[in-house]
Amino acid sequence: DYLKSFRFQGEIYSSTEGDIVFPTRPVLTVEATLIEAQLIETLLLNVLNFQTLIATKAARIRQSAGHRTLIDFGMRRAHGPAAHYAARAAIIGGFDATSNVRAGRDFNIPVAGTMAHSFVQSFDDELAAFRCYADIWPNNAVLLVDTYDTLKSGVPNAIKVAGELMQKGYRLKGIRLDSGDLAYMAKKARKMLDDAGLNDVKIAASNQLDEFIIKSLMDQKAPIDVFGVGTSLVTGQPDAALDGVYKLAQTGGTPRIKLSENSTKITLPYRKQVHRIYNENRECLGADVITLRDETELTGMHHPFDPIKSMTFDDVGSEILLHKVMENGRRMTDIRSVRDIAEFAASRIGMLPDEYRRFDNPHIYKVGLSSRLKRERDALINHYKEVG
Amino acid sequence: DYLKSFRFQGEIYSSTEGDIVFPTRPVLTVEATLIEAQLIETLLLNVLNFQTLIATKAARIRQSAGHRTLIDFGMRRAHGPAAHYAARAAIIGGFDATSNVRAGRDFNIPVAGTMAHSFVQSFDDELAAFRCYADIWPNNAVLLVDTYDTLKSGVPNAIKVAGELMQKGYRLKGIRLDSGDLAYMAKKARKMLDDAGLNDVKIAASNQLDEFIIKSLMDQKAPIDVFGVGTSLVTGQPDAALDGVYKLAQTGGTPRIKLSENSTKITLPYRKQVHRIYNENRECLGADVITLRDETELTGMHHPFDPIKSMTFDDVGSEILLHKVMENGRRMTDIRSVRDIAEFAASRIGMLPDEYRRFDNPHIYKVGLSSRLKRERDALINHYKEVG
Repeated sequence: DYLKSFRFQGEIYSSTEGDIVFPTRPVLTVEATLIEAQLIETLLLNVLNFQTLIATKAARIRQSAGHRTLIDFGMRRAHGPAAHYAARAAIIGGFDATSNVRAGRDFNIPVAGTMAHSFVQSFDDELAAFRCYADIWPNNAVLLVDTYDTLKSGVPNAIKVAGELMQKGYRLKGIRLDSGDLAYMAKKARKMLDDAGLNDVKIAASNQLDEFIIKSLMDQKAPIDVFGVGTSLVTGQPDAALDGVYKLAQTGGTPRIKLSENSTKITLPYRKQVHRIYNENRECLGADVITLRDETELTGMHHPFDPIKSMTFDDVGSEILLHKVMENGRRMTDIRSVRDIAEFAASRIGMLPDEYRRFDNPHIYKVGLSSRLKRERDALINHYKEVG
Repeated sequence: DYLKSFRFQGEIYSSTEGDIVFPTRPVLTVEATLIEAQLIETLLLNVLNFQTLIATKAARIRQSAGHRTLIDFGMRRAHGPAAHYAARAAIIGGFDATSNVRAGRDFNIPVAGTMAHSFVQSFDDELAAFRCYADIWPNNAVLLVDTYDTLKSGVPNAIKVAGELMQKGYRLKGIRLDSGDLAYMAKKARKMLDDAGLNDVKIAASNQLDEFIIKSLMDQKAPIDVFGVGTSLVTGQPDAALDGVYKLAQTGGTPRIKLSENSTKITLPYRKQVHRIYNENRECLGADVITLRDETELTGMHHPFDPIKSMTFDDVGSEILLHKVMENGRRMTDIRSVRDIAEFAASRIGMLPDEYRRFDNPHIYKVGLSSRLKRERDALINHYKEVG
């Protein structure tokens, strides 16, 4: 009975990490009876923390890979059934396809893959394996060339099979490198293919790739057209977790707060709104301001705890970030396809200036409080300090 | 048709990492038609890699925590539905309980938890929240004491409620610390509780714990009785993945091999067996030898690639590690409860000498090849080098 008696505003806060200057920002608000809000807490955190982690990792890999094709190869190393949702989140973050056929079916996303070492090994020689595979997939064969010796055996055999396909009116689609020095191997293989007149045959690469290795391969101008990324994508290595939390902000009409020895863990009371700030050309200024729900005038913002840091807004535009998506158990928005969500994510990431997106010492996106919210929060902190 | 025509022996190899001397060892063998063995590959790797990762992490945490109680608190940060299997694997690795009630129900494992900050916040003051909670759970109340101020408010209020419970014939079960310096806070709180005659009230702690932090807390003699471990347990941070692979070893009667520029990635051909070596007192010698399936005499073993490294066995005992667990789709062994599997795991880990279990620079468990297997493998390597 007690648990049913209060309306509750739970919020998910984004993670506080390292030297982030303005640390917490509501990304989702739940208004419900206390027991309803509690029941949904763990599920919301479980779903949002994980898929946001993977979509973020995918977006970083996309940033390194430019327009090259990216395929999720992670199911073997994903955390059990998490593979299913990792494939979805990878597409949202910018991947093109997954090797996970069940996820492909359930989320209507493209599936792609090549051949296995075991297929090649199951034949007495590599050439026979390649011929059999090309016979089954004449239009769509990507041959795995590193089972025995990439440059002495795999690539020459692939070129032989490409020639045989051509005589039947087909083109070999590509080869895949899965070991060795990928930059070196890709350059050597590209030259061998080109010398054989196979300029259209693509080179795919895999083997413990992540955004840093792919960036290095791109910097070296490795002629790789397709990257298959597994473990680091679907596990979000090295972080492996996004530390979103869900905190009580208000019950009935009463604001609520949680204090902490660590200032960044002190929560924000009251029903709130988040505004993204733009300049007159609608360029992102790298600043979101958290206000009380009913505030409309944005004059500036304060660092949550450092009294020296604040900024005032002149002539800025803004956009509200928290919108109602569900009411009384009914979805308030249209269902969007994974592809549509991916396009939206790409357009939002595209608004971020480069210095916020670089991997080393990026600018930190600022999140601040309105004067009113800061004043109300500080009053509540003082109240509990006196009670304590 | 091609795919159905061969019997296939797929094997899962354990991971190759860092400076492991003898790197790969079959932990599971599948004999099936090629297509059957292929269809089950990804599922086997997905299940075994993940749950082994988490059970291993749990075992490391158990090693640090000694006989203290360990509870899985990880569902918020687990990789979506992976939380379910992480809870199971945590018990197998040595945890006592989980806060994941669905996993508790499905795997018949104990569930445990305390209260939430939001419960405390939803009251106008902490004491009222503690009283309400103790009223609902008079026999089983663990009060979360860090919502406002642990030592000035939380612990004194918990002591007050413990006294009120006592007057009704109940004992407060415990308090939980979730922030601040856990060693310092636990010592201060323990003294306050003891001074109030509450020596039996337990102290639980949580907040980004892992095996290293728990070891440090134990080294500092922090009087903590219960550890709640979340993120690092259920994600297996910092590794986040176990790199088990599945490789073709034989088709029909023909041995198969995959070569690689990286010696540790060259596979082992033929149907095989793994033998664990013991001394005359059945003490583990830290050595497993991989042999051809029918070998019975164990005379020594060779490092897979370093010709200088080998050992001979005198008067050793041994145990076979690969047993048939399924045939024609039928399980060949009794169903074991999660608790039974946990006891088995603990007994096996207990056989490992201490130096294999320490966290810093542990002894590396040796895995080697019998003379016959090494000879046959080397012949196959040379065959493909010549063909190449």
